[in-house]
Amino acid sequence: MGKLLAVGSMAFDAIETPFGKTDKILGGAAPYIGLAASQFDIEIAIVSVVGEDFPKNYLSLLESKNIDTSAIEIVKGGKTFFWSGKYHNDLNSRDTIETQLNVLGDFNPVVPEDYKDADVVMLGNLHPGTQLSVIDQMAKKPQLIILDTMNFWMDNTWDELIQVISKVDVITINDEEARQLTKEYSLVKAAKKINEMGPKFVVIKKGEHGALLFHGDNVFFAPALPLEEVFDPTGAGDTFAGGFAGYIATTKDISFENMKNAVIYGSNLASFCVEKFGTERVENLSKSEIHQRLLQFKELTQFEIELT
Amino acid sequence: MGKLLAVGSMAFDAIETPFGKTDKILGGAAPYIGLAASQFDIEIAIVSVVGEDFPKNYLSLLESKNIDTSAIEIVKGGKTFFWSGKYHNDLNSRDTIETQLNVLGDFNPVVPEDYKDADVVMLGNLHPGTQLSVIDQMAKKPQLIILDTMNFWMDNTWDELIQVISKVDVITINDEEARQLTKEYSLVKAAKKINEMGPKFVVIKKGEHGALLFHGDNVFFAPALPLEEVFDPTGAGDTFAGGFAGYIATTKDISFENMKNAVIYGSNLASFCVEKFGTERVENLSKSEIHQRLLQFKELTQFEIELT
Repeated sequence: MGKLLAVGSMAFDAIETPFGKTDKILGGAAPYIGLAASQFDIEIAIVSVVGEDFPKNYLSLLESKNIDTSAIEIVKGGKTFFWSGKYHNDLNSRDTIETQLNVLGDFNPVVPEDYKDADVVMLGNLHPGTQLSVIDQMAKKPQLIILDTMNFWMDNTWDELIQVISKVDVITINDEEARQLTKEYSLVKAAKKINEMGPKFVVIKKGEHGALLFHGDNVFFAPALPLEEVFDPTGAGDTFAGGFAGYIATTKDISFENMKNAVIYGSNLASFCVEKFGTERVENLSKSEIHQRLLQFKELTQFEIELT
Repeated sequence: MGKLLAVGSMAFDAIETPFGKTDKILGGAAPYIGLAASQFDIEIAIVSVVGEDFPKNYLSLLESKNIDTSAIEIVKGGKTFFWSGKYHNDLNSRDTIETQLNVLGDFNPVVPEDYKDADVVMLGNLHPGTQLSVIDQMAKKPQLIILDTMNFWMDNTWDELIQVISKVDVITINDEEARQLTKEYSLVKAAKKINEMGPKFVVIKKGEHGALLFHGDNVFFAPALPLEEVFDPTGAGDTFAGGFAGYIATTKDISFENMKNAVIYGSNLASFCVEKFGTERVENLSKSEIHQRLLQFKELTQFEIELT
């Protein structure tokens, strides 16, 4: 059985979209990654940190999905990372209203012994030094290390970011970040430069415009499923990453052809995530719903042209 | 043999992009539509208007592609429509520097007798009253009428626009225009509202983010081909429309399955258009280049997932 190590933040999120607002709900990269990956028949552990204020029932929720939470450090007297944000009317952009790093500021990840041989390591968006520390703790080289990052680390921790990028197999970033990282406007050129920095596979996330997978001269595109209602985009990128990582951990096949499927699974799960606030939709997702949506992705993209 | 009637502007364009600038070159919707459609084995006529200043060799160029130019009115002493624009660094937006309507301001389209039974009518972006006049002149209902329009007509000639929309089978607009036309943010909802306004098929053009085809509950997505170099986006939408219309005129099959192929052909031809200034690339395009690129579109989008 495939083994996935997921490292990422756990948070309280307070979200406002044009359709409503939430009080503090379960957030952070790790829960989205874990919940998405739990759709596959694999072993999953989350390495993260929370404060003493973190509700036990959030941990129970993850455990009920067969996610190992024993490496989630609970800091006595500490407060959990908090983020609040407000989306603009078009849902494509948002303002951060407040960020309280709290215990995440001193996060020192400890990889459990029985996950030092994980097949797939998913490094959620964190300080690149923290991500590096996880890679250094692995006892054997994982089949695939996937890195998520963002512009903040390009602005503030360039050298460490470049170092961690050089050690991973897949990077997932958005189009603007790919351009910032490489100073190339063309995403084709940007992906080639990132290849040269280390990652053999580059996933460029474009939100409602889908995702591109680059590998050498190969390129694959998965659209986002056009939806009647998009409720809350929070966590869609992490859900995509969790679906991608989980699919690779269960198939253990890192050919480009199979990576395409991983991108489709990631897009599939992300399309559910945005339908409700927070993790609500991915918590309650059946295999048959996912299969139904796979058929929709096929209808959306597949065509038969006779080459005359 | 399929017969396509293309109605649209003919212009001098002066274009500046981050990669260079042109003097007055051949522009307007009709040349792009005609050149793209001329890749198919069909009869094509352009209905348009130019001034006496319009170079004969531009007309000869179109004729060399078997495009009937006899319904292009040449106004004695008149000046041809002129547009100049400058693209921003990201090529996704542009400023219009100057527009001189000239003879286009009094354009009174006359459909030639032998095209009043055309199979496909492609109405390029024009005053909706002009587009209506073309529909009224048809002797029999074409198999497919395709309408291109833009936000300018929504702002200035709403009633006539709604009238022409009610009489066409396919509308091609961009995502922002679909939202403006329907007051719906979700493109799925916007497309449904447009269906109710008349067009059974809605093509939403998203530039570098591809194109969506809606038909009832069916939806298909064609990505734009990721390119190393995008030189000049001018005419890409019209080239898309010409490829779409030409493919339908040659296949005479307006099933949703075949419309998907039309969208792919449109995207294919548009991907060439942006590689050089103006019409240069679509003027010099071989069937084998198009077939090669069709294979790239297949690789870009096709996947094989086992439904487990």
